[in-house]
Amino acid sequence: MAKRDVCVIGVGMTKFERCERSFHDLVKEAVTDALGMASVAPKELEQAFAGYVNGMSCQGQQALYAMGIGGLPVYNVHSYCSTGSSALHLGYQAIASGMNECVLAFGFEKMTKGPLESQLTGLKDHYDEAAKKAPPVAARMFGDGGRRHMELYGTTKEQFAKVSVKNHRHSVNNPRSQYRDAVTLEEVLASREVYDPLTLMQCCPTSDGAGAAILCSREFAAKHGHANPVRIVAQALTTDELEDFGQGALGMIGVGMSTRAAAKVYEEAGVGPQDVDVIELHDCFSTNELITYESLQLCGPGEGGRLIDEGVVTYGGKWVVNPSGGLLSKGHPLGATGLAQCAELVWQLNGMAEKRQVEGARVALQHNVGLGGACVVTMYRRD
Amino acid sequence: MAKRDVCVIGVGMTKFERCERSFHDLVKEAVTDALGMASVAPKELEQAFAGYVNGMSCQGQQALYAMGIGGLPVYNVHSYCSTGSSALHLGYQAIASGMNECVLAFGFEKMTKGPLESQLTGLKDHYDEAAKKAPPVAARMFGDGGRRHMELYGTTKEQFAKVSVKNHRHSVNNPRSQYRDAVTLEEVLASREVYDPLTLMQCCPTSDGAGAAILCSREFAAKHGHANPVRIVAQALTTDELEDFGQGALGMIGVGMSTRAAAKVYEEAGVGPQDVDVIELHDCFSTNELITYESLQLCGPGEGGRLIDEGVVTYGGKWVVNPSGGLLSKGHPLGATGLAQCAELVWQLNGMAEKRQVEGARVALQHNVGLGGACVVTMYRRD
Repeated sequence: MAKRDVCVIGVGMTKFERCERSFHDLVKEAVTDALGMASVAPKELEQAFAGYVNGMSCQGQQALYAMGIGGLPVYNVHSYCSTGSSALHLGYQAIASGMNECVLAFGFEKMTKGPLESQLTGLKDHYDEAAKKAPPVAARMFGDGGRRHMELYGTTKEQFAKVSVKNHRHSVNNPRSQYRDAVTLEEVLASREVYDPLTLMQCCPTSDGAGAAILCSREFAAKHGHANPVRIVAQALTTDELEDFGQGALGMIGVGMSTRAAAKVYEEAGVGPQDVDVIELHDCFSTNELITYESLQLCGPGEGGRLIDEGVVTYGGKWVVNPSGGLLSKGHPLGATGLAQCAELVWQLNGMAEKRQVEGARVALQHNVGLGGACVVTMYRRD
Repeated sequence: MAKRDVCVIGVGMTKFERCERSFHDLVKEAVTDALGMASVAPKELEQAFAGYVNGMSCQGQQALYAMGIGGLPVYNVHSYCSTGSSALHLGYQAIASGMNECVLAFGFEKMTKGPLESQLTGLKDHYDEAAKKAPPVAARMFGDGGRRHMELYGTTKEQFAKVSVKNHRHSVNNPRSQYRDAVTLEEVLASREVYDPLTLMQCCPTSDGAGAAILCSREFAAKHGHANPVRIVAQALTTDELEDFGQGALGMIGVGMSTRAAAKVYEEAGVGPQDVDVIELHDCFSTNELITYESLQLCGPGEGGRLIDEGVVTYGGKWVVNPSGGLLSKGHPLGATGLAQCAELVWQLNGMAEKRQVEGARVALQHNVGLGGACVVTMYRRD
């Protein structure tokens, strides 16, 4: 079918941090900000797609009821670390297909425990004490992926660590970032080893937060005063092919999903990586950012290290990757992350990103992956 | 927008029971049966919508991977007791909107604990010993709703109990039902009181199971040999209006959601309750079946008791309600229930319901509600 353009006319996100605020309170802030930016009243929303990993059923409804929004059809979705963008993709489809004119996508997370532990809550009784003290599963998987990349291509520990240096530097200018201090390469490398080659400062922190986006048709946007809105021109959600699991350590961290989702989006948009200006990608661990440069076709296989060495992926380079600070510095409240990436890119394309603005940004790319799992890649454009 | 007809060309469900089978195994059976009935190969599916309440993220993907289906976009949704039909409704929208030609909706549940306890897992540490021994929250809510109905309309305990007698009698002919024994009114009334007016035999059991449905366009159905398929002619998902919570005990059990969803479906279909032949509705407790007769406009307010007394809602009456045995006797594995209701009605409209066939059934209605919450009402038709 011919898909309609999907406009993103409002976005919002809370500061990411460990905090005592309830999920109701976090959602209220993000959704209120998104509605305000969009100039949309709650009664104009036709459906809502809520993403969160930890919690009971229907917390999406509960959060909306608590802010006075009743009667809105809500779907609660979860997909580990790609939960937020799974909600976003359902919202995208509702508009692209012509089913709805205006919908809400939002995501939130209260991470009472570390992200990997919280994912394994249901299994905790089966873990013995030794297993509980082992590095988190995700650190092992993304660490193994990094080591495999080193073996195959000669990538160095310093190159991975530089990713974290870059993203922490970017986050200095992001008031919503969990961390806002620049860090040196020496500090990153000297921080506690979590799992070789990953040190603590190359692992995303545990965070609470929420994000939201208002999606609508071109016609709806125009009627609400958005003459030149940011549009999603292509979006794809992929899952693992069974063959991926036979591809060793790199296959286990979603490289196949990421590669296929990016290729689909470039093909559907008719726009390649060379035309992209700014990128938010899934740097849950430093290794995954560098590996993902290749999945997104920013460079050929094994060339990720060169991109970080040569400053190609920061201000002044070809692409600014993770201007927000990324998951590594901004934080990673699972259900909120996909919406926070969306918010950053919409602000960037609207020239609203203040000190971290990427000058002249017109095309943006989002990459959000959850192991097990799903990967969502999204291309945004503003004329 | 003009919605396309959505055909249901394949359905499957496991026997509902307490069992040692894994969710992978349960899903495999239900999905394999649905694909077989549809004459559809896995690679023809474009998206999948998975519903389950208890468990970790991405169990939808895991279940499909385990049966050899990779690469299919999967969305995991949950909405307490209306989880299965929330997945079904997302699948419906994917076809109705023209986004996809063929999708899979499936749902499953492994209920390691009772349904209400399992919903409250996250809160268990906050409950004191007295609270743990109290009747389950849902029994209290649906019991209170029943007592309110008695106060308002003079409905009797016997009338509620007759609902359970009817549904157990229907399930004698359903090989997939958890219970298959007929019970007497005296037995139902004499079973242990859970919460006035509900005795144990008026509460749905704890169950494991899975259900699945293949949804597609008319064109896709025709190409796969389905000349006269069952179609979903209207479907609506509603959530609570904030005013509902001020409506006392009946407002708290989703009467508002149910009433609005049914009215929307009748309006969209242009078909009223008088044209319906067979109904699967959400009889989690006997009180809710009787109250739902009124929400679905089978009778006026307060007349539900008369319908059960006069045999209007069983074989030989105007409507056969819950020919499968309903949640009360067939069982209620949360995420599977909405798909199992769908399966029963598709079998009924195709004349495949064997000893429990409702003769000449052409129009069917499904009602699935989850408190907190969402209600999904669906109308099916076969020419």
